[in-house]
Amino acid sequence: MEQLDTICSYKEVKKLDENGLKELCRKLRTLILDVTLKNGGHLASSLGAVEINAALLKAFNPDEDKVLFDVGHQSYAYKILTQGAERFATLRQKGGMAGFPRLDESRYDAFTTGHSSTSVSAAMGYAKARDLKGENHHVVAVIGDGSLLNGVSFEALNNMEPNNSKVIIVLNDNRMSIDRRVGGAANHLAQLAVNSTYKKFKAFVKKKSENSGFRPALENWKNKLKAILLPANIFEQFGISYWGPFDGHNAEELAKVFELAKQYDKSLVIHVITKKGKGFKETEENPSYFHGVGANSSLRIPQGSGKLAWSKAAADCLTELAEKDDKIFALTAAMKDGTKLGEFAEKFPERFIDTGIAEEHTLVYAAGLAAGGMKPAVCIYSTFLQRAADQVMHDICLPKLPVLLCIDRSGLVGNDGETHHGLFDAAWLKALPDMTIAAPRDEKELKFMIDGWAERKIPMAVRYPRGNVPAFDFEKSSAEWGKLQLISEGKDILLIAAGDTLPLMLETAEKLKADGRDATVVDLRFIKPLDKYGLLEQLKKHSLAVTAEDASLKGGIGEEIAALVSQNLLNCKIISVGVPDRFISHASSAEQWEDCGMTSGNIIRLINES
Amino acid sequence: MEQLDTICSYKEVKKLDENGLKELCRKLRTLILDVTLKNGGHLASSLGAVEINAALLKAFNPDEDKVLFDVGHQSYAYKILTQGAERFATLRQKGGMAGFPRLDESRYDAFTTGHSSTSVSAAMGYAKARDLKGENHHVVAVIGDGSLLNGVSFEALNNMEPNNSKVIIVLNDNRMSIDRRVGGAANHLAQLAVNSTYKKFKAFVKKKSENSGFRPALENWKNKLKAILLPANIFEQFGISYWGPFDGHNAEELAKVFELAKQYDKSLVIHVITKKGKGFKETEENPSYFHGVGANSSLRIPQGSGKLAWSKAAADCLTELAEKDDKIFALTAAMKDGTKLGEFAEKFPERFIDTGIAEEHTLVYAAGLAAGGMKPAVCIYSTFLQRAADQVMHDICLPKLPVLLCIDRSGLVGNDGETHHGLFDAAWLKALPDMTIAAPRDEKELKFMIDGWAERKIPMAVRYPRGNVPAFDFEKSSAEWGKLQLISEGKDILLIAAGDTLPLMLETAEKLKADGRDATVVDLRFIKPLDKYGLLEQLKKHSLAVTAEDASLKGGIGEEIAALVSQNLLNCKIISVGVPDRFISHASSAEQWEDCGMTSGNIIRLINES
Repeated sequence: MEQLDTICSYKEVKKLDENGLKELCRKLRTLILDVTLKNGGHLASSLGAVEINAALLKAFNPDEDKVLFDVGHQSYAYKILTQGAERFATLRQKGGMAGFPRLDESRYDAFTTGHSSTSVSAAMGYAKARDLKGENHHVVAVIGDGSLLNGVSFEALNNMEPNNSKVIIVLNDNRMSIDRRVGGAANHLAQLAVNSTYKKFKAFVKKKSENSGFRPALENWKNKLKAILLPANIFEQFGISYWGPFDGHNAEELAKVFELAKQYDKSLVIHVITKKGKGFKETEENPSYFHGVGANSSLRIPQGSGKLAWSKAAADCLTELAEKDDKIFALTAAMKDGTKLGEFAEKFPERFIDTGIAEEHTLVYAAGLAAGGMKPAVCIYSTFLQRAADQVMHDICLPKLPVLLCIDRSGLVGNDGETHHGLFDAAWLKALPDMTIAAPRDEKELKFMIDGWAERKIPMAVRYPRGNVPAFDFEKSSAEWGKLQLISEGKDILLIAAGDTLPLMLETAEKLKADGRDATVVDLRFIKPLDKYGLLEQLKKHSLAVTAEDASLKGGIGEEIAALVSQNLLNCKIISVGVPDRFISHASSAEQWEDCGMTSGNIIRLINES
Repeated sequence: MEQLDTICSYKEVKKLDENGLKELCRKLRTLILDVTLKNGGHLASSLGAVEINAALLKAFNPDEDKVLFDVGHQSYAYKILTQGAERFATLRQKGGMAGFPRLDESRYDAFTTGHSSTSVSAAMGYAKARDLKGENHHVVAVIGDGSLLNGVSFEALNNMEPNNSKVIIVLNDNRMSIDRRVGGAANHLAQLAVNSTYKKFKAFVKKKSENSGFRPALENWKNKLKAILLPANIFEQFGISYWGPFDGHNAEELAKVFELAKQYDKSLVIHVITKKGKGFKETEENPSYFHGVGANSSLRIPQGSGKLAWSKAAADCLTELAEKDDKIFALTAAMKDGTKLGEFAEKFPERFIDTGIAEEHTLVYAAGLAAGGMKPAVCIYSTFLQRAADQVMHDICLPKLPVLLCIDRSGLVGNDGETHHGLFDAAWLKALPDMTIAAPRDEKELKFMIDGWAERKIPMAVRYPRGNVPAFDFEKSSAEWGKLQLISEGKDILLIAAGDTLPLMLETAEKLKADGRDATVVDLRFIKPLDKYGLLEQLKKHSLAVTAEDASLKGGIGEEIAALVSQNLLNCKIISVGVPDRFISHASSAEQWEDCGMTSGNIIRLINES
C-alpha cells in the first residue's frame, strides 16, 4: 500500500507546482485503489476525479470555502487531503471514515450526501446564507453529468437566476452516469465537449489570461467566443455562464480555471471532461464494474461466485416472464448493472427502458405504460425509490395500475451506510391504499410473487435485500397468495418472520429448542395486506410472540401486529425486533444487524426477560 | 346558469366551423363560471384553456387518441364535452364529477392526475405501449408552463429522444404557474413567445401549408426558419421539435396546428399562449385569486371572513418570528397565496424564496440555508410534500438540519379529493429518525411549536389542516415541550386526540357525559416522539381508550399506542378512529369525516360495542 505518510495535507497542496500536483495525484490514485479494493467502496468515480479534487484544494480554501460533492462517489481524494491518509485507511469500516461526505464527520465535508443531484440546490442555500450574513467565501458544487440531468438539479438550475447568489458548479463529465448516460441533454453535453474550434481558442484565451490579468481576459473570452463558437448552450438559457470544456486530468490548468472562477461575479458552470476509472487499465476499461466494489476485491474481475444474488434472481424471474408474456417491461433508473438487467435488455431491447437518474419520471412512465395495457416492472433500490414516493401513491396506487416495484437493497445494506439503507419503504408503502407488499424468503417465493403479480395486474412491491438468496433445508411449496406460511409448529413461543428475517428466526428456534423450548415459526410472506386470519390463529395459541423485520420498527409489522392483538383483546405479548429509530452508520451488514439487536442471542435475551 | 342542453358533445365539435367554435367556447366559459362558483373548483386555469380543449376535440378523436392533462386544472371544458354538461353540474360533489381527470371516472380521462408535471412521462409510456402494440392513435400531453419547469417534466423531456415514441406536447403558457412563474427557463419561454419576426413568418407558413399540403410545408418551415429566426431553443436541444408560439384563444387556428401535428412524424412541443382567467374581467384581473375558489363564491372578492385560516396563522407566526430573528427564512414552491406568505414576502423580501413548482429543490435549498446557519421554514401542502419525501430523510433528518416543515392541508381536504388529501405525511415522517412532528390544536399552540423549533434548531414538522383555526372554551397554557396535555379527567374512558381531532374528542366526551360516562380527554400535541410516559400514566388508569387522528390509520398513532400497550402488558383496549386504508373521494370535509367514521356518533357506537 502507498505509504500513508507521504501524502500531504490540503494546506500544502497550495504550494505545489505542476510536477508536484502530478506526483500528488499519482500517490492519491494508488492509495485510493489500495484502500478501496481492500475495504470496498466507489472506485472508478473517485479515480476519475483525483485532479479535480487536487485543483479544488489548490484554488479554494476549505477552512472558509464550501465544497459540496454531489452523491460523494468522487470525493475520496478530497477526504484524504482534508482528513488524512491514515483516516482514509479506515474507509467504510465500523467507526471509520464514511464512504460519503458527512457534515458530522468532518468540518470540511460541507454537506451530507449519498443520493444524487442535491449539490446545486444545497450550494444555492449556502450561497444565499453567505450573502445574507455579508460573508464572502466561495461555494462550489461538484456534480457529475448523470446527476446534473436529474430533475432536482434541473429545478435548481432553473431557480439559479432569480436566486442571484453566486455558486460555482464544476460539472465532472465522464460521459456516463452510473451505467451510461442517456437522454437528449446528454447529447447536448457531448456536442459542447467536442467543439474543436472552441478548443483551439481556449488555448489562446488561457495564454492571454496569464499575460494580461484575469478579468479583461474573461470578458474578452465571454463576449467574443460565446455567441460565435459555442453551440447553443442549455446553461446560458438558464442565465448561467458556461466555461469549458477543460481537460479534467490536468490539475494545474483546472486550478487556474478555478482561480478565474473565484474572481468572476456570477454563477457559472465549469465543464470538465474526465475519464471514469482513470489511472489503471482495468478500471478504465471497466468503469461500470469498478463503480462500486466489495471488500477484498482485486483488479481481476471474478467470473461469478456461484452464488445467486437477489438482484439477479429478480431479473431472471422478469426475463423468464417476458418470454411468455409480451406485455412485460423492465425499467431502471441508471442501474442496469446494479439490478442485473443486462440479460433482459439483450433479449428484449424494445421492452427494456433505462431512463438515466430519473426515478420520478421512471415511475410515471411505468404508470403510462400500464395505462396503455403493458405490465411494467421497475427494478430500483429501496433508498432511491424514496425519490419517487409521491409517484407510487399518485400515479400507481390511486389509479390502481399494474406496476411492479422490484425493491432491491431493502433493509440494512452494510458499508454504504445511512444514505443507502432501505429501511423506510415498508412503513410508507404500507400506508398507501391498494398497495400489495411481498417479502420473499427465497428464489422460489420470489418467482411465485412476481408471477402472481403478472396474473393479478395490481400495484405491487416485492422487497428483497442486498446480498445472496438463501437456500433452506425444508421443502415447502408456496402457500396461497396473501397467506402466511407455517414453517414449524411449537407450543411455547411464536416467532414471526418476514422474508429475509426467516433465517434469523430459524436460528432462534433452534437455540430455543436446545434449551428445551418449542417455537412456532411463521413466514409472513406478505407485509401488506397482513394475513390477519392466519396471524390471529397463531397469536391465540401463544402468550408470547416475537416479530422480526429488516426495516424501520416505526410503522412496521411489529406495531401493526401489536395493534391487531390489542384490537382483538388477545393475551399475547409482542416483542418486536428490527431497525430502531435512529440512523445506522456504515459497518458490515452483520455488525449492523447486531447493532440493531437483530440476533438470535438478543431475541433469546428479550424472551427470557419478558 | 347556461342551459345545459345547448352544449354539444365532443362528436359534434368536429363539424363546427370557426363561428361555431367561438359560440361553443362562449357557452363553455359561462357554464364553467357558473358551476365552479357554485360548487367550488379551479376556475382561472379552466377558463384559460377553453379554446385549447375545443381545438383538441376538433382535431383528435378521444375514442382512440389519448389526451392527458397535467394536474387537471385546465380540463373542465374537456370533461364537459366528453362527459356532458349535466354531469359537470355535479362537479366536486359527493358522487359527482371529480375536479381532476380520473381513469376510473371516464374512458376519456386518459390518466389520473392532481399533482403537477406527470403528463409528459405518462404520455411517453402510453406512446411506447402504442408502438409496441402496433397501434397508431395519438398521445397528447397538455401541460402548463409552471408544470413544465418542474424536475419530473425535465426528466421526461430529457428521456424523450432515446424513448423514440411520438408524443404531442401542448404547452399551455399563461406565463404564470399557480402564483407566478419563476426561473431561468421561464425567461427563455418568454423570449420564444415575443419573437416578432417569427410571428410574421408563421402567418406565411400557415398559408403555405394550406395551399400545398402539410408535409412539404412543414419541412420547409423547420429547415428554413428554425436556425435563423428562433432564439436558441431549449426543446430543440432535447431533440424535440418546437412549433409556436400560437394564439391560445383562436380555436380554429389551434385545431389546424393540431391537424398538422398529427401528420408530423416526431415528438413535438406546440407552444400556445393563453390568458389565465380568460373571458371575464374579474378573473382576468385576479387569476391567482380565482385559481381555486370555494363553494358558493361570486366574482366579487370578499374582504376577509373574520375567521383565521390555519395557513394565515402559520404565516403570521413566521412573520412575527422573523421580526425578532434575522435567520428565519420562509420558502414556498409556487404557493405564496395558498400558504398566505404575502405579508412575510413584503416585509422580508430577502428572506422569502419562491422556487416555482420545485418541491425537491425547495427542501434541499432549505437544507443548504440551514447548513449555512439560517433557520428556514418551508410552507407546503402535505400532498405536495410527498414529492420531496427523500429530501426530508436524506437532506434534513440525517444531517439533523434545523428546517421547519409547515405542513398545510394535512388530513382530509374535502372537495379536491383523493390527490389533495394530506393523509400520509404522519406515517412516513414518523418512520424518520430525528424528526419531531407536532400537531397544534389552536393558534396559541401553533405559535408555541414554531417558536420552540426556532429555539431548538431541530428537523421538525408542524401539521395543520385546511380550514380555520378553532377556538376552545377552556383556557390552558401550553404544556411542556414534547408532553401531552390533559384537557379533562374522567374515570371511564380515555379519549386521545392529536391536534385537529380534539374538537371531535371534546364533542364525544360531552355526549358520553350526557349518558353518564366520564371521559378523560388528552391532546397528544406531539406525534413524534410520542409522550410515552404521559400516555402510560393515562393508559394504566383506563381499560378502554380511543385514539383519533386526521391521517392514515396505517402507520398512525393508533397503531403505535396499541403497540405501546402490548409492550407494557397493560389491560387497556385501544379503539382507533382515523382514515381507513382506502382512497377517500371528493365530497365536503364533513362528509369525508363521516365516511371515515370520524364522528362522535360512530365513536360512541364503537365504545358501546366493545
